[in-house]
Amino acid sequence: MIHLYDVELSGNCYKVRLLAALAGIPLALCPVDLAAGEQLSEPFRAMNPWRQVPLLVDDGLVLRDSHAILVYLAARHAPAGWWPADAASQARIVQWLSTSAGEIQHGPASARLVEKFGYQLDHAEAVRRSAVVLPLIDDHLASRDWLELDRPTVADCALFPYIAWAPEGRIGLEPYPAIRAWIDRIKALPGFLTAPGI
Amino acid sequence: MIHLYDVELSGNCYKVRLLAALAGIPLALCPVDLAAGEQLSEPFRAMNPWRQVPLLVDDGLVLRDSHAILVYLAARHAPAGWWPADAASQARIVQWLSTSAGEIQHGPASARLVEKFGYQLDHAEAVRRSAVVLPLIDDHLASRDWLELDRPTVADCALFPYIAWAPEGRIGLEPYPAIRAWIDRIKALPGFLTAPGI
Repeated sequence: MIHLYDVELSGNCYKVRLLAALAGIPLALCPVDLAAGEQLSEPFRAMNPWRQVPLLVDDGLVLRDSHAILVYLAARHAPAGWWPADAASQARIVQWLSTSAGEIQHGPASARLVEKFGYQLDHAEAVRRSAVVLPLIDDHLASRDWLELDRPTVADCALFPYIAWAPEGRIGLEPYPAIRAWIDRIKALPGFLTAPGI
Repeated sequence: MIHLYDVELSGNCYKVRLLAALAGIPLALCPVDLAAGEQLSEPFRAMNPWRQVPLLVDDGLVLRDSHAILVYLAARHAPAGWWPADAASQARIVQWLSTSAGEIQHGPASARLVEKFGYQLDHAEAVRRSAVVLPLIDDHLASRDWLELDRPTVADCALFPYIAWAPEGRIGLEPYPAIRAWIDRIKALPGFLTAPGI
């Protein structure tokens, strides 16, 4: 059984639950109580010194990063297509995993951490970063249905949660019609899994 | 011929030149004049709407992100081992590509942008982020020679430039003996390519 240490309102966890739902991968969810500081406890730290969720444990393999988990689940447990085996396709997708870990995490995701959870981060800076990256993504999606390869891939799973949740960080999606249409397409996929506020 | 649009002092570009040197991949370097705003010009924007380097062009494929370029070059043009084909190995490496695009880019790399190039970013925040991630990397490397898989991979190429350049951002590496030993191991690899200040 694949175990995912999970927090429902974490976008990084939701990325993984979303792929699993869309690709039909059964996960055993292990909820982590952030409010009680469970991620800081010694048993959790022994599994993940980074003290973060999500954390995946499967067949002795332990992975600490949402994008690594997406790649692993798609390559190992999903139907072909979510993470193709050829160099060019993998590289095209990795472009978006970097965007997710960089511009999105430090843009819309950080804005939401401030507004929804009271984190001490620079909201104005997160808004400024979002105002750079969201128009680029909107332009990219204006001429295509999916981020790469003309089909849903792990790239779409990586970017969906924090972009769809951007309004929770006071970043409106009204200026981005192609992003809004892409969100609707993802929501219409068979097996789509929602989350609170999506 | 593989074309890399390159800036010598960019760590994101150096990642790519380093892998190419270590793995014996010939690159045609196309220097981009950032001081003259070449990355903002219309011809460059037509190739890369993100207006960033590095940019790789090979056989009709255009890639805009350093980590995507590392994956592509390793999978397509390098000897086996730099980017293995199995799911678990790829995922282990992707953990570090996310760390590179997230914590390193917004930590040591950002501190260097402020100190060396006068960027208007929050140096104190970059130092604070570095003080979280560098001890985790040092602990990880205390019991191993390479970031994953007991051999050099694209993960090491991704993290080396901005960690080795951390002192240029006024982030000292004295507290991190395992990181310093890892830097020395990379420098001792056959084919190692240096850069100014490394």
